Amino acid sequence: MAANHHAEVVLLDHWTSQFGQRVCIALEEKGVEYEYIEQDTINKSTLLIESNPIYKKIPVLIHHGKPVCESMIIVQYVDEVWSDKAQLLPDEPFARARARFWADYINNKGEALEEAKKDFMEIVKTLEVELGDKTFFNGDTFGFVDVALVPFFGRFNAYEKIANFNIEEECPKIVAWGRRCMHRDSVSKILPDDQKNYELLLKLRRHHGVE
Amino acid sequence: MAANHHAEVVLLDHWTSQFGQRVCIALEEKGVEYEYIEQDTINKSTLLIESNPIYKKIPVLIHHGKPVCESMIIVQYVDEVWSDKAQLLPDEPFARARARFWADYINNKGEALEEAKKDFMEIVKTLEVELGDKTFFNGDTFGFVDVALVPFFGRFNAYEKIANFNIEEECPKIVAWGRRCMHRDSVSKILPDDQKNYELLLKLRRHHGVE
Repeated sequence: MAANHHAEVVLLDHWTSQFGQRVCIALEEKGVEYEYIEQDTINKSTLLIESNPIYKKIPVLIHHGKPVCESMIIVQYVDEVWSDKAQLLPDEPFARARARFWADYINNKGEALEEAKKDFMEIVKTLEVELGDKTFFNGDTFGFVDVALVPFFGRFNAYEKIANFNIEEECPKIVAWGRRCMHRDSVSKILPDDQKNYELLLKLRRHHGVE
Repeated sequence: MAANHHAEVVLLDHWTSQFGQRVCIALEEKGVEYEYIEQDTINKSTLLIESNPIYKKIPVLIHHGKPVCESMIIVQYVDEVWSDKAQLLPDEPFARARARFWADYINNKGEALEEAKKDFMEIVKTLEVELGDKTFFNGDTFGFVDVALVPFFGRFNAYEKIANFNIEEECPKIVAWGRRCMHRDSVSKILPDDQKNYELLLKLRRHHGVE
């Protein structure tokens, strides 16, 4: 395995990836030290290709030389291996299934969120209803669904600026939830700040020919 | 909850669904008794809509009146609740992540498998390599990935007849694995036989205007 000379925990990632951010947040919640290796997503490294031969995509977590791929599968892996701290999935099977359902929903709808399509507000409203009056999606503790969603929340502000609309007006609970999440060290340390996100989004739009 | 007058475990399903078959196989492996309620997928029942308000799709497992949706999330739920028998996900976190990765791969590629697209053989070959010389995807015991894939295997024979090609020539290990799976009561009881599958596929093709 090519990762032999690396640290015990290695993350192959790219700083703009919301999927990679999920993994970083989970590792920070658990207090796991890891070596971050920024990847060139165009000219892919041998390490990336060997670690994720099926999809050749970041993020990949390499633990003791063994690669784990796909962001929410990595988050579950991290939750299972470092189970002594900051439990991300609840204990009770029905609550676990619910959390997986919502993380899955966010994954399936993530592309729409990412591209700020017209159904963006509909998705956010659905999540607003599911959150309800809870502090986090699980209840009182930060968990699996929060990890899945918060990297998208990190771009709400940029979407608002670009598309000139107000998320808070229609979904005050989700916005309040996002702010609560941003107060966690694990989240604020990982998510780029609003200005950086805004610049990134403008850059992506120019890249896709949208001015 | 509308399901109060039903059995402890209720499955909302449609007999042609490969996603529903996964759930049935998991329940059979665990020896769980359940009430099967065939659903009209066109004129959806109130019970289905109330149980899966987000996607309004089968399968849905209702346990003690609480609905769990999405086939592989249901399979994990079943594995966690009835954990005393026929463990479907292995204990070791890395092996669990691998199993989830492959189940996810099958889910993502399932549509291609279903529609017998040109990359069908490429997907089957990738799975052939992952299976290697193991008895089941986990190793010696029937598990999570087997549950995810075997309902698709159930249609290989029909695909071969319709498209006039031979899967076994290129992927003998997968075909042998499929036959091993078919010897399990949980699988043979649930999957329609070859002839029924063939007729179903012909019917679907006619429905889509393919003769």
